Amino acid sequence: MRVAVFPTAASAPPVAAYAGFQPVAIDVLRATTTIITALANGAAAVVPCLTPEAAREQAAALPGARLGGERQNRRLPGFDFGNSPQEYTPAAVAGRTICFTTSNGTRAIAAVAPLGPVLIAALANVGAVVRRLAAGAAPVLILCAGSDGELCLEDTVCAGAIADGLGPEAECNDGAWLARELYRQHRHDLPGLLRTARHGRRLLGEGFGADLALCARLDSHSLVPAYSGGAIR
Amino acid sequence: MRVAVFPTAASAPPVAAYAGFQPVAIDVLRATTTIITALANGAAAVVPCLTPEAAREQAAALPGARLGGERQNRRLPGFDFGNSPQEYTPAAVAGRTICFTTSNGTRAIAAVAPLGPVLIAALANVGAVVRRLAAGAAPVLILCAGSDGELCLEDTVCAGAIADGLGPEAECNDGAWLARELYRQHRHDLPGLLRTARHGRRLLGEGFGADLALCARLDSHSLVPAYSGGAIR
Repeated sequence: MRVAVFPTAASAPPVAAYAGFQPVAIDVLRATTTIITALANGAAAVVPCLTPEAAREQAAALPGARLGGERQNRRLPGFDFGNSPQEYTPAAVAGRTICFTTSNGTRAIAAVAPLGPVLIAALANVGAVVRRLAAGAAPVLILCAGSDGELCLEDTVCAGAIADGLGPEAECNDGAWLARELYRQHRHDLPGLLRTARHGRRLLGEGFGADLALCARLDSHSLVPAYSGGAIR
Repeated sequence: MRVAVFPTAASAPPVAAYAGFQPVAIDVLRATTTIITALANGAAAVVPCLTPEAAREQAAALPGARLGGERQNRRLPGFDFGNSPQEYTPAAVAGRTICFTTSNGTRAIAAVAPLGPVLIAALANVGAVVRRLAAGAAPVLILCAGSDGELCLEDTVCAGAIADGLGPEAECNDGAWLARELYRQHRHDLPGLLRTARHGRRLLGEGFGADLALCARLDSHSLVPAYSGGAIR
């Protein structure tokens, strides 16, 4: 099974060259971790929006919808939630649609959506993602969101965990090979690796240490959300 | 000293955000290895050209110039040399200007040229590059050419060797940190790593195994060429 990993949303390859590949999007800190948490806690759907304005417009058109997301790690003015998975409790999100915008994650999902339903992955659901991919047997294109346009360790190690989980038959591109090496070296201290990562250090400095620990935890959920038709379910 | 590594020419950051950084370009297989070899063997200059047509035009304007470069690893029609460092012998290049075009390397050099003279690095001159950067003391932006637009192991490990050589005071972005890890894991078998890399496997399959071994050799030259004013010297 071919496994291709690309390190940032901007580095997404021309999708035409990857027809038939199963797309996967990763933004461990924190968009995809938050999306998985919200849906696991009963949210009806998450609608990714490229801009805060688009999120507001979408929410206005959906009765009962909630607004979530961030810029510069902070909740946006007038939004119900920021980008901390801890905010998306069952009491807050059950049955609700969340119109959601973040700096990097939304872009990554949009970049590979032409290939078909995009699986939403984070360390929180790596095991379930691997089982889904192994069952589907299609070649895999994993797009990391990156952080501020740059390669980031947290998304790379998550992509590597998926490549590793797909076993020795995975035919890795160089990005997948490197990601898998990173995972194999650091699998026993993912919280430490996330604290080394630039975005992780920044979140720590801004008081989001509990989020960092949560986002570093493997397999806290068995849900594999997918983006299709404008929403993640 | 800040050290920022970017994995592909297309992932070069907006240069305005990196004013004052010393730019370095890497294309281990094979452009920068070949450029270093040609200059070490006495070529007067190497003029990087984005297209074969541009190389032909430049060469026509420079009496005695030679044409070098490749597309799909092969020498271009009418060119004097391909992209194999072994072709650039002292007898063939001494005193000559080489108008040179390759798939990835030329683009990487052009992308960071607005920052100032671009140091040309490969495994062949890592030690000399490190000494130059350490003496200059400016923060460092390393742009890997990548291979066919994708992150590649050979450029990443070379960037990691530079970051590692700059010592514990190097403040790495995540790309530099990951590259340094790759180098530290594989420093004792760089030929093996290059044979694992996708482009390395392809070169092997096309009969360029001797080039691969040459490109994997550390510090075979102590020259640090720089691109400035349209030429590398």
